[in-house]
Amino acid sequence: MSLIKNTRILDTLNGLPVDKTPVWIMRQAGRYLPEYKETRKKAGSFLGLCKNPDLASEVTVQPLRRFDLDAAIIFSDILTIPDAMGLELKFEDNRGPFFEAPLNNINDVEKLNTDNIAEKLDYVANAIIETKSKLNNEVPLIGFSGSPWTLSTYMVEGCATKDFRKIRSAVFNDSGMIKNLIDKLTISITDYLVMQAKAGADVLMIFDSWGGLLNSENYLDFSLNPMQEIIEKLRNNDASKNIPIILFTKGGGSWLKQISASGCNGIGLDWTTNIKYAREIIGEKICIQGNLDPCALHGTEQSIKEAASRVIDGYGYGHRHIFNLGHGIDQFVKPEKLAILINHVKDYSTQYHKN
Amino acid sequence: MSLIKNTRILDTLNGLPVDKTPVWIMRQAGRYLPEYKETRKKAGSFLGLCKNPDLASEVTVQPLRRFDLDAAIIFSDILTIPDAMGLELKFEDNRGPFFEAPLNNINDVEKLNTDNIAEKLDYVANAIIETKSKLNNEVPLIGFSGSPWTLSTYMVEGCATKDFRKIRSAVFNDSGMIKNLIDKLTISITDYLVMQAKAGADVLMIFDSWGGLLNSENYLDFSLNPMQEIIEKLRNNDASKNIPIILFTKGGGSWLKQISASGCNGIGLDWTTNIKYAREIIGEKICIQGNLDPCALHGTEQSIKEAASRVIDGYGYGHRHIFNLGHGIDQFVKPEKLAILINHVKDYSTQYHKN
Repeated sequence: MSLIKNTRILDTLNGLPVDKTPVWIMRQAGRYLPEYKETRKKAGSFLGLCKNPDLASEVTVQPLRRFDLDAAIIFSDILTIPDAMGLELKFEDNRGPFFEAPLNNINDVEKLNTDNIAEKLDYVANAIIETKSKLNNEVPLIGFSGSPWTLSTYMVEGCATKDFRKIRSAVFNDSGMIKNLIDKLTISITDYLVMQAKAGADVLMIFDSWGGLLNSENYLDFSLNPMQEIIEKLRNNDASKNIPIILFTKGGGSWLKQISASGCNGIGLDWTTNIKYAREIIGEKICIQGNLDPCALHGTEQSIKEAASRVIDGYGYGHRHIFNLGHGIDQFVKPEKLAILINHVKDYSTQYHKN
Repeated sequence: MSLIKNTRILDTLNGLPVDKTPVWIMRQAGRYLPEYKETRKKAGSFLGLCKNPDLASEVTVQPLRRFDLDAAIIFSDILTIPDAMGLELKFEDNRGPFFEAPLNNINDVEKLNTDNIAEKLDYVANAIIETKSKLNNEVPLIGFSGSPWTLSTYMVEGCATKDFRKIRSAVFNDSGMIKNLIDKLTISITDYLVMQAKAGADVLMIFDSWGGLLNSENYLDFSLNPMQEIIEKLRNNDASKNIPIILFTKGGGSWLKQISASGCNGIGLDWTTNIKYAREIIGEKICIQGNLDPCALHGTEQSIKEAASRVIDGYGYGHRHIFNLGHGIDQFVKPEKLAILINHVKDYSTQYHKN
């Protein structure tokens, strides 16, 4: 029995009726909030912020103080797993995180260590424990990880690159290396998510930011099947077996049928796929999370409301929609515009949840 | 009556049976060929190469001397139109083409000049005339343009950017500016394509490289509808009314039904959409062009053949498939690997064209 007061997101994921469409925002704890920037400064560095449970939990709850959100998501970075596996993560000013020594061959992959991932990443468990205490059972907390394929892309490329040619070519000319890497990541990610469940995460989400780079056969082999393996392992573990799981493949609009058969409870939808069309394909057995164009938040009050209404109308009647953006909120959004959006979702969606 | 000897591509576009699946390669005249680099050096600059009909036609026919291709595509750049409209295109070493003064508001858009586009771009017409003479009716020549939306993205962003936030936000906060820009481009692109038809282009292709950035409503409003308007105008012009038209929206896998209703004769498919699935949606009234993952060309001989066979098998029996990559060939491909691909397509596809 959950003690959480606001159960809209959990109910939606579990197929129970709700009074309004629940809403949270990808990257809601982030640079568009001045209070985030303050805390980030205090931490000294981005990785310092991730590794400090006190400050990480603080930024996790910050957006909840401003907005009528139905969930928190733990503040962390998807690249902490490769770091814990021995591929050192670097940060420089004015540049995203990167790996100075990206993986070039199977020997590099074999050096990666999948032992004791949960111990090495116990700072995330501690941040979850501290956040749960701060949330005081008001809303559920979402834990997350990158997908095996997405983590592989960064580990082989070193960082997000223009066209990811190195890993996309490796899929054809050194698939053994990539499969080996994905197998190792599948083990580490599973351990990491089980740890998050034990620490108190109420929902788990897998971010597959770069699955959309692959052709359809390779998407199944290198991205969806490993995610499905993780889901199966989570279902077979007492700590995680009842925790709803959301999969989000950016650019996955062509593969919704296959993703919906993976065992997940919800599918994250990017902004390019029409949500009405997605619902026709996915059905109502699982949830759809999404999918407002993040750039809509740079519009006027009226255009923000119209764009959000189109998403809500697109999903239509029913209780299996979690409102979100189709990708993370960007740092240039004004917080008052996000407030307009969230309040509108709450007001406008009620009509679709009557009786 | 066409005098062209190899009519495979024209027949495929016109719904007539062919003996093998025709093949050409996006960006087949390009930097992966040493002879291209030689000619490019002679021209002094990229724009110099585009503007010199003798050299532009030379690089256009170069790949035909090496490979058993079923078409040539005129060598040019999609950004010559904005340049001709008054937005000066710049080139610097180690950087793609860019606009130093990108468009910021409707006043900037109003300064653009759609007059006499065909005259200003007569170097492209001359390159087509010269290429037709060099081709000597062996294979058809494809002319092309960027789509209104895709040209808009470069004109507003200045160049290809990480997430195109400026134009994606303008769609929400200054849609009047973007609509005005797209209207002007629709006029210029139509004039440009009619000019290419008059000069001798046998097929016309519209490259919508960035339509996939948009949500589905905005894709229709800002990208597909303007392309459809261009098609209608081309159909109403004696010079272009019988010329087959191919539309290619990269990332357009969710909108195949709508694209196939645009009046085009063929749809370019990027590598992320399964071609079998695409055929189920599109049917056989129009062609599908694509869609091998361009990175497959970095594989071994065997993996190249297997990947190509999967595409050909995916389309299956029938005469409405033009084999191509799902995106342009990259500069690091070895020409001998492309030869392996093209020969294999010719050999392997015969089985699907019997009786």
